[in-house]
Formats: sequence, structure tokens, C-alpha cells
Amino acid sequence: MQNERKIFLRKAIQLAIAKMEAGYGGPFGAVVVKDGKIVAEGYNQVTSANDPTAHAEVVAIRNACKALGSYQLVGCELYTSCEPCPMCLGAIYWARPDAVYFAATKTDAQGAGFDDQFIYDEMNSPPASRKIPMIRIALPDATLPFERWISKEGRLDY
Amino acid sequence: MQNERKIFLRKAIQLAIAKMEAGYGGPFGAVVVKDGKIVAEGYNQVTSANDPTAHAEVVAIRNACKALGSYQLVGCELYTSCEPCPMCLGAIYWARPDAVYFAATKTDAQGAGFDDQFIYDEMNSPPASRKIPMIRIALPDATLPFERWISKEGRLDY
Repeated sequence: MQNERKIFLRKAIQLAIAKMEAGYGGPFGAVVVKDGKIVAEGYNQVTSANDPTAHAEVVAIRNACKALGSYQLVGCELYTSCEPCPMCLGAIYWARPDAVYFAATKTDAQGAGFDDQFIYDEMNSPPASRKIPMIRIALPDATLPFERWISKEGRLDY
Repeated sequence: MQNERKIFLRKAIQLAIAKMEAGYGGPFGAVVVKDGKIVAEGYNQVTSANDPTAHAEVVAIRNACKALGSYQLVGCELYTSCEPCPMCLGAIYWARPDAVYFAATKTDAQGAGFDDQFIYDEMNSPPASRKIPMIRIALPDATLPFERWISKEGRLDY
């Protein structure tokens, strides 16, 4: 089991190196595994796709969901070359794989210029005083989308 | 200025309602504004697109980056019907708009079944003891992608 995990994790690392060297983006790779088989791959494509959300894990999750025809990854495992950033961690919780395995740590990433810790720290600051200020504007219709959602027939929860 | 902001925020709320009622997904909408004009829209498409990352803000960020031909949203503002979840918050930091304005709060979202707080709490737990366990497996090549990245010629930072 542990050996199999290392094989998948090595695949994520190989993707990270190969796709970064090919110019797709940063040095990150990921694979999604179900029933002992890789169902999707992902690698960072931020700068080549002009998509700041195209991190390896997000891309792998999207590809796996497409391959499986589902918006959930129950029964799957995600292998990623590096500990997920806050965005990818959030994406993982929405996709709900059974487990995540990673090789490098966020401290290793920081050493290469990827400052995930800054984002983690910002999340714990009050919204309006963040480096990117997040300001609430009170509007009478603010909660109307939720009221309509709660009363929606045939609502598909996720 | 405040009135203009309310107009953009109302647009985000209208998108949230209209697209949710049309069956695209959850009750969330967003717009990206540059120089006083909407350059992109986004709405939740998780269940219709089989994409757990297709939250309103993520979709709006992707669409705005495509429209502007950039992987950064410097000089832009994001208006979203609801306070961002951790995934969207992370996406915002990677996209770097100047500011974010929101109408409903994460507490409002929680009342409608969207438990962002659970994810925020999980982020502050040690990785291996999270509800989705995140386990480090030590490999000799773990930091090789970063070493190659640091020495890469013509590296495009993001």
C-alpha cells in the first residue's frame, strides 16, 4: 500500500518537473486515483493558460470530475507534489476525496517563492483589514438568493 | 462611488438568483469590474458543469483573466453576492484584484447549508488529523521540482 502510494506520488512529482520545464507554469503536479488507478492528472498552468486558479490540484480535481461524470470525488485519493495552498485546500473540501498525500511541504514551497503562509495568515485577519480589503456593503436583497435556494424545488445540494 | 458599488453588487445578486433558478448550481454570483465597467461575470456551476471548483468567484476570475489576457487582476475589483469561501478567498489572493465587495456574509451562507466555517476550522487543524486526512510521505525527490524551478532560465513568476 505504502509502495503504491509512493508510485503515485512520484508520478505527481514527475509531472511537476516535466510540465514546468515545458513552460506550462509553476513546479507542481497532482494525480487523482480511484480503485488503484490514475483517473486524472493535473499540473500548474497559471501562466500558460492565464488562469490563476489553474493549480495542479484544482486542475486534477476538475479533470477527475469530468472523467468520472461527478462533482464529488468520494472514493478517490489525491496525490500532490506539494502540500496544498489555501485555494487548493478549499477545492479539496468541496470535492471530498477520501484522503490527500503530498511530498514537499508548504515550507519547501515558501523557499521557492510560493508564499502560501501569507494567504493562511490573511484568512485569519478581519476581512476589511486584509491586504486585499474585503468589504461588506449592506443591501436589502443580500440574503434573497439564499431564501430562493432554500425554497427551490428539486434543489441539488453539493 | 458607493452607489456605483451597489449597482455592481446588485448585478452579482441578480446573477446568483437567475442562474440558480435556471438550474446551473448554488445561489452565488460575481462580477469583475475594471475602470468602472464589468469585464466578466461568474455564477455557481458546480452541479451543472460537474466541477466542484466552479464557484461564482472562481468562474468570474477565470473569465476576467481570459477577457484581459492576464493571469493577474491588478486594477480590478471583484463584487460577489456572498463573502468568499476559503477556496475562493485563496483564488482571490492568487489573482490579486485591488478589492472585494460582498453582500451576504458567511453566516448567511451557513444558514442556507453552505458550511464554509467547517473548512476554515479544518485549515487550522494539523493536516494528518483533518476530516480529509492530508498525509506527508517523505520521498528523496520531494523538493526537486523547486530546485529545478529556482534554476530555471526565463522563469515566469506569478
